Amino acid sequence: MTGAVRGWSGLSDRNPLIEFVDACLRGPAQVVFQNNPLSGLLILVALAWGAFDGGQPRIFGGAVLGLVVGTVTALVLQVDRASWRKGLFGFSPVLTGIAVPTFLDDRPLMWLYLVLGAAATTVVTLALNAIFKTWGLTAFTMPFVLTTWVLLLGAYQFNRFTVLTDLKPMLPGEGTLTEGRFDWDLVPTFLRGISQVYLTNSWVSGLIILVALLINSRWSALFAVVGSVGATLLALWFGADGASLDKGLYGFNAVLTAIAVGAVLHRPGALVTVYTLFGIALTLFVQVALATVLTPLAIPVLTGPFNIATWLLLLPNRHFAPLPNHERVKETLVSTAKRTVRRQAEER
Amino acid sequence: MTGAVRGWSGLSDRNPLIEFVDACLRGPAQVVFQNNPLSGLLILVALAWGAFDGGQPRIFGGAVLGLVVGTVTALVLQVDRASWRKGLFGFSPVLTGIAVPTFLDDRPLMWLYLVLGAAATTVVTLALNAIFKTWGLTAFTMPFVLTTWVLLLGAYQFNRFTVLTDLKPMLPGEGTLTEGRFDWDLVPTFLRGISQVYLTNSWVSGLIILVALLINSRWSALFAVVGSVGATLLALWFGADGASLDKGLYGFNAVLTAIAVGAVLHRPGALVTVYTLFGIALTLFVQVALATVLTPLAIPVLTGPFNIATWLLLLPNRHFAPLPNHERVKETLVSTAKRTVRRQAEER
Amino acid sequence: MTGAVRGWSGLSDRNPLIEFVDACLRGPAQVVFQNNPLSGLLILVALAWGAFDGGQPRIFGGAVLGLVVGTVTALVLQVDRASWRKGLFGFSPVLTGIAVPTFLDDRPLMWLYLVLGAAATTVVTLALNAIFKTWGLTAFTMPFVLTTWVLLLGAYQFNRFTVLTDLKPMLPGEGTLTEGRFDWDLVPTFLRGISQVYLTNSWVSGLIILVALLINSRWSALFAVVGSVGATLLALWFGADGASLDKGLYGFNAVLTAIAVGAVLHRPGALVTVYTLFGIALTLFVQVALATVLTPLAIPVLTGPFNIATWLLLLPNRHFAPLPNHERVKETLVSTAKRTVRRQAEER
Repeated sequence: MTGAVRGWSGLSDRNPLIEFVDACLRGPAQVVFQNNPLSGLLILVALAWGAFDGGQPRIFGGAVLGLVVGTVTALVLQVDRASWRKGLFGFSPVLTGIAVPTFLDDRPLMWLYLVLGAAATTVVTLALNAIFKTWGLTAFTMPFVLTTWVLLLGAYQFNRFTVLTDLKPMLPGEGTLTEGRFDWDLVPTFLRGISQVYLTNSWVSGLIILVALLINSRWSALFAVVGSVGATLLALWFGADGASLDKGLYGFNAVLTAIAVGAVLHRPGALVTVYTLFGIALTLFVQVALATVLTPLAIPVLTGPFNIATWLLLLPNRHFAPLPNHERVKETLVSTAKRTVRRQAEER
Repeated sequence: MTGAVRGWSGLSDRNPLIEFVDACLRGPAQVVFQNNPLSGLLILVALAWGAFDGGQPRIFGGAVLGLVVGTVTALVLQVDRASWRKGLFGFSPVLTGIAVPTFLDDRPLMWLYLVLGAAATTVVTLALNAIFKTWGLTAFTMPFVLTTWVLLLGAYQFNRFTVLTDLKPMLPGEGTLTEGRFDWDLVPTFLRGISQVYLTNSWVSGLIILVALLINSRWSALFAVVGSVGATLLALWFGADGASLDKGLYGFNAVLTAIAVGAVLHRPGALVTVYTLFGIALTLFVQVALATVLTPLAIPVLTGPFNIATWLLLLPNRHFAPLPNHERVKETLVSTAKRTVRRQAEER
Repeated sequence: MTGAVRGWSGLSDRNPLIEFVDACLRGPAQVVFQNNPLSGLLILVALAWGAFDGGQPRIFGGAVLGLVVGTVTALVLQVDRASWRKGLFGFSPVLTGIAVPTFLDDRPLMWLYLVLGAAATTVVTLALNAIFKTWGLTAFTMPFVLTTWVLLLGAYQFNRFTVLTDLKPMLPGEGTLTEGRFDWDLVPTFLRGISQVYLTNSWVSGLIILVALLINSRWSALFAVVGSVGATLLALWFGADGASLDKGLYGFNAVLTAIAVGAVLHRPGALVTVYTLFGIALTLFVQVALATVLTPLAIPVLTGPFNIATWLLLLPNRHFAPLPNHERVKETLVSTAKRTVRRQAEER
């Protein structure tokens, strides 16, 4: 397989079309911090499974369209080529492309809205990265979150759209909560916690995404599981809503925080793991708080809580013996977390 | 007329009172990015027309009072003199001065509130400019927006005030939308889209403001029209609320974005025009989204959407052959957009 | 007494346990910008009085637990030792520790929530300080405010908690306001305005806190009174809610603004006093505006308005002959406010 990878990599250097396909494939993988076209391909398979299995193939169409439009927009705006080739301008638009057909009803104008939204996601990515660079950070998936919030909130003011978020606008304390149960049905719930990173409610998709992580980084796969299991069990303990719990909706933000803080932006270790477990709880608390804020507006939290929690965890810039590169494990341990984050910042 | 302009300019250099009047006159013009006392005077005429024609002369009084208080506050706080002389400390307070008597009922305490609000607008201008300087940007009219939001939201907690925003607090989906129609009545709507920059609902005022733009910058006048027409037609197509549409309320934010992005902060051209058209759509989407967020609080969006959209469009700092200065058109084209924005930042 | 202070200070240098107790004691004093363990001890006495007198001793337990957990977390995260010794990592967690048992019902899980919240407050302190350093500012008590908002908003989504904020979720204009009266009962109200800085509704506690200020800085004590009296009278004049007024709820944010702007971050003087009076009005307006925004979510404003108003007042960075140090009053007057703020930024 290494030969195939090397062959593909060579093709990508020579052929602009292959280069474009390669950049596009890396997009879905960069959502979970992996720079690998094969992982991206597997994730697209997972998205296709989720969309067709759920009877909504247009969601998969939206994902591909968003990915392509966002990546092309970045080309037109002449972004940094190295970052572009790593899929760093595809990972937010692919999510916008999933979200729009998930939350708006099907009609031709929705597709125009999606195209404009995917292009806007790329502009917002450049804008937020310019701001977050000040503190050695990047925008993560926040451009997707902000753009999708704007598109959904805006759709309420347009007669041509119907918003299908399944969320009734409510003020705090108006609804009633039915708690979840601790039993073996939690295992598919944990996997759905992983698939929900891509707004997909399917344990099969979650399993495929886990494989996509595994082929590129075992630490990332491990921490994805830790994030989903940890946040779901904590939500269960505190008595969170059972229906949301069952769909994996308390897991997906913590999955991203756990991969970022536990496996990618620091060198995995004991202290880092403790900090990551704390980060999983922080992510859950930010998520339920944001849910209370957004429920009156009837829009979902998306991956906003992951972004907020992970920024808060990285900004203190503590020295946890960071991992600059999987290959250079023997590198001096004095390199600070700051340097790693900066490098990530430049890459993302 | 050039002679008269030169004579005025000389007077302004020698006489402190004339200098003060000149700085005040430039304020209203700087709302639409023009540094010209005659444009400012014409805009004041447009505001007077709108206020008297609408039967609310006190709104014009508020505009003048806000302008003077904001400009004097800047003097007391010893701001940069060159910026002050360009009217850059008058353009937000004049808007606060219009907004307070527009949205609060008439009583003596309202005038104290207005004076404190106009002074606060200048403090907030200095504060936000200090923050946005970090990214080569300025606060635009956001100090007016934030201050006025605070004044209106605060007024709900004071028995001495009655808020007259005509907005019923509602959660998303509670109201019903009646769409607008495509006919010749849209022409005055386009002009009202321009007058609404100054919270004024009058096509005559819109026309006078257009003339005020024209005498200083033809590109600015052209893009003001493009912004108003573009955003209004897009809102009509997507099925936005007909009553708001008729008042020009979907146009005024896009007017400002179009002038800023299309005519002032970049050198006008084909690629810039495409980016500006995209920016007009972005501004409309941000506006309707913000309207959904603010409707439960019963406050208007004001020019918030213009500020947000224009920051997002400028932060990526793309190279569109910028226009540093109307006089030096032959200047080398390699000067980057960044430099232009920085210069604007210092000026504003 | 000077001898006792010197003896304690020597002990604190030699004995790690005394050093820890000293750092903890300075925490409550740093809420009101005082670096003095005796002031902190007096404030703890005031908190104990308020908690026991109000029949809720667990609130005092929460204060001590939050203070210790936050201070220990900072040690574990290896923060700057000099700042840590000044109590700069205790002042926000002690407030979180008061807020959680004040606003959530008593049960074992609440204490776990409090411990996680206090630890999170320290992480958020480091994160926000990293951001605000960009503009020569610090996070003040905003880490407490944000963390507590998240904990309360999140609690609405957990069946294990009941939120006791006494705030009915309402949209603007839904309630009715009963105004306060101008009489001698305002004197205890002014003192409650000081105790409410620590979420405590007791004029006796307010008096003890005033003494705690007095023994360290007479200017701070004076401006605390000016802030409470000024904001309360202004709220009374504008017709604010009488019940909130009586509890001192319109005073406490202005108390903090007045100490910060009038006594600590600038050299006290005539122009600074005028600016501080303006700042007191600004703080009140921000507070009532924020109350309107947060009422639909049924969470309190806490000290958010002080933070926002004080940042806005400091960012313009005007030159008011700053006071770098109480001892070096004769120091050259050319030292800019910027330097003072920077020094404060490093200290806090």
